[in-house]
Amino acid sequence: MNIFTRKENKIFTTPVLEIDLKRLVENYRLLTKIIAPAKPSAVVKDDAYGLNAAVVAKALYEKADCRNFWVAHALEAERIIEGVPDAEIYVLQGIGVDSLELFRQHKFIPVISSPEMLKFWKKHKIEGIKPVIHVETGLNRLGFREPDLQKLSAKDRQMFSMVMSHLACADEKDHFMNAHQLENFTRIRKRYFADLPASLSASDGAFLGEEFCCDMVRLGAAMYGINTAPYRQNQMQNIINLQAPILQIAQLPKGDFVGYSATYRATTDRTIAIVSIGYGDGCPRSLSNVGKVIFKIDGKCHEARIIGRVSMDNIICDITDIEGLSVGMFGSLICDEYTLDDIARDAGTISYEILSRLGKNTRFIRRYIPA
Amino acid sequence: MNIFTRKENKIFTTPVLEIDLKRLVENYRLLTKIIAPAKPSAVVKDDAYGLNAAVVAKALYEKADCRNFWVAHALEAERIIEGVPDAEIYVLQGIGVDSLELFRQHKFIPVISSPEMLKFWKKHKIEGIKPVIHVETGLNRLGFREPDLQKLSAKDRQMFSMVMSHLACADEKDHFMNAHQLENFTRIRKRYFADLPASLSASDGAFLGEEFCCDMVRLGAAMYGINTAPYRQNQMQNIINLQAPILQIAQLPKGDFVGYSATYRATTDRTIAIVSIGYGDGCPRSLSNVGKVIFKIDGKCHEARIIGRVSMDNIICDITDIEGLSVGMFGSLICDEYTLDDIARDAGTISYEILSRLGKNTRFIRRYIPA
Repeated sequence: MNIFTRKENKIFTTPVLEIDLKRLVENYRLLTKIIAPAKPSAVVKDDAYGLNAAVVAKALYEKADCRNFWVAHALEAERIIEGVPDAEIYVLQGIGVDSLELFRQHKFIPVISSPEMLKFWKKHKIEGIKPVIHVETGLNRLGFREPDLQKLSAKDRQMFSMVMSHLACADEKDHFMNAHQLENFTRIRKRYFADLPASLSASDGAFLGEEFCCDMVRLGAAMYGINTAPYRQNQMQNIINLQAPILQIAQLPKGDFVGYSATYRATTDRTIAIVSIGYGDGCPRSLSNVGKVIFKIDGKCHEARIIGRVSMDNIICDITDIEGLSVGMFGSLICDEYTLDDIARDAGTISYEILSRLGKNTRFIRRYIPA
Repeated sequence: MNIFTRKENKIFTTPVLEIDLKRLVENYRLLTKIIAPAKPSAVVKDDAYGLNAAVVAKALYEKADCRNFWVAHALEAERIIEGVPDAEIYVLQGIGVDSLELFRQHKFIPVISSPEMLKFWKKHKIEGIKPVIHVETGLNRLGFREPDLQKLSAKDRQMFSMVMSHLACADEKDHFMNAHQLENFTRIRKRYFADLPASLSASDGAFLGEEFCCDMVRLGAAMYGINTAPYRQNQMQNIINLQAPILQIAQLPKGDFVGYSATYRATTDRTIAIVSIGYGDGCPRSLSNVGKVIFKIDGKCHEARIIGRVSMDNIICDITDIEGLSVGMFGSLICDEYTLDDIARDAGTISYEILSRLGKNTRFIRRYIPA
């Protein structure tokens, strides 16, 4: 991107978020091959991890023939329907009085995860919809437990179109929980839902082998470029490019402090750049004194360490050793060379949380590379 | 709120964010008294710390006669103008080629923070606007440094309508930086901008005494209920109520693990509640195994500890010792008894970051208590 290397004397103030839908669709297609013969489906909950679920779902629908989507809430489902007219949309948090009307109107498919919700469903049943049943296999989050399952009648069990569960530790290939949960899931399927299609894995489970893929895999994080199999090199392409302009370059004399609460003090004379992005844009404050900004000059990457606290609108970084920077040039917070996984590690969290925060911010100049 | 104590057997799935504009306006009015005779102004940058800047600015304009607003970016200013027709809107990140048109169209007032930006301003000057000049006094972030100021001509200096700076450590009453920055600011004012109105403090500085208030104080965090003077009891009212429904209650047998990566293991039989909110809603993942959910039963508060990892859509909490809970009841993540400051402390960050994340999420049922 030539915005990186632009050197004319111009002033920019606004961060730029670029989302590569082409790569996203390519990731999805590659995942589809990896999980075959299981059927792929796309997880676009939490506004497609913050990237605009309407845009992401439409791209997957049009360019990758995706016809099965997962969201967390019915109001998220409503936002994508226009672009995916005849798709099945599953709602993971299920159905309640606060979403019933949306289900009635749009025929979303609720995931039923508790006896109480099942009771609610039976009372308000919607013609033509067969819900998914969520069973608990070891995560101890949502889902029917064994005693709940035992209470289901044969008629109850025939009400569903799919049985699902969710893995706790699928990003660790050899974690004992994987085998444990697969065993539980297999037993439950056999005992209660022998004829029902099944879905166990999200995109981390996709890499654990065919038996984890069952009939349908819920592809989310990996599609967005996150390495969900961190025990090996990422097969996915980065889809995020986050850049922000240098607002000011200044000398920082030896002994001076930087940022809120004066957490950084210069031990020698430094040169600093004030970059127009902060936690108000979704760059975690935990990057304070830890994170970095990448500057690309003539195709070469240079790292500038973030010094002092990340503030709401700005970060300050040390550019003492980088030649050729000037006000108006852009630095990268996320790019191919410093990915979501990298920034998440430096921020002490997971890529999912970074992504989920980022895209919802409304003060980026936002660009989508078309699929 | 009776939603807390509702006990009928209903299912809810959606978190509810309630923002009390009445209290926000009362906070602003109280701050106005504290800083008098300095003039108040409202900081509504970052979408009013995530609470919807258009709504917040309009309430302050109509109910508290606020006529001076601060945002970070011109595109944020554009979103509030309809509700504050004849107000002055200052843009802290300043002006650039990516925002010039918005400044021309709406007469926003740029804050000029570097010689390069001043050069840009002189080239693209907009009739009828007198910018603010930002001078650096110790934060080492944005602002003219002394050598830059020396290069300004008398004519340059007459171009501005106000001189501002920003404090680094104003939330610590006795921090040496406060006196140091005030001294620097006073010297710079005298030497270069003797006749210009001045603004040094945001809402933390507001509590440091009259000399820190100068002519105008930029009231942000405190107005939103954050204690910006943590060395004493908060004088501000909490304005945030964040609740989420219990989706499921389950038994957790001794020895079982909870959540992703199995970070929690039950040492005795426990009862858990799965609550429909997660980091996808802005509840930091750093609350994993640390945070809490408050349940109010018959007017009494009960704390349920978050166990295991916070996931994107759900948290799991331990309700073993709480009687009378059932599926469909709501727990509080933020309320008068467990404020923004409390959740921030537990999450290892500051209230500003929590607030900035929260309100931008679009899958809440959102309610405003009118001013």
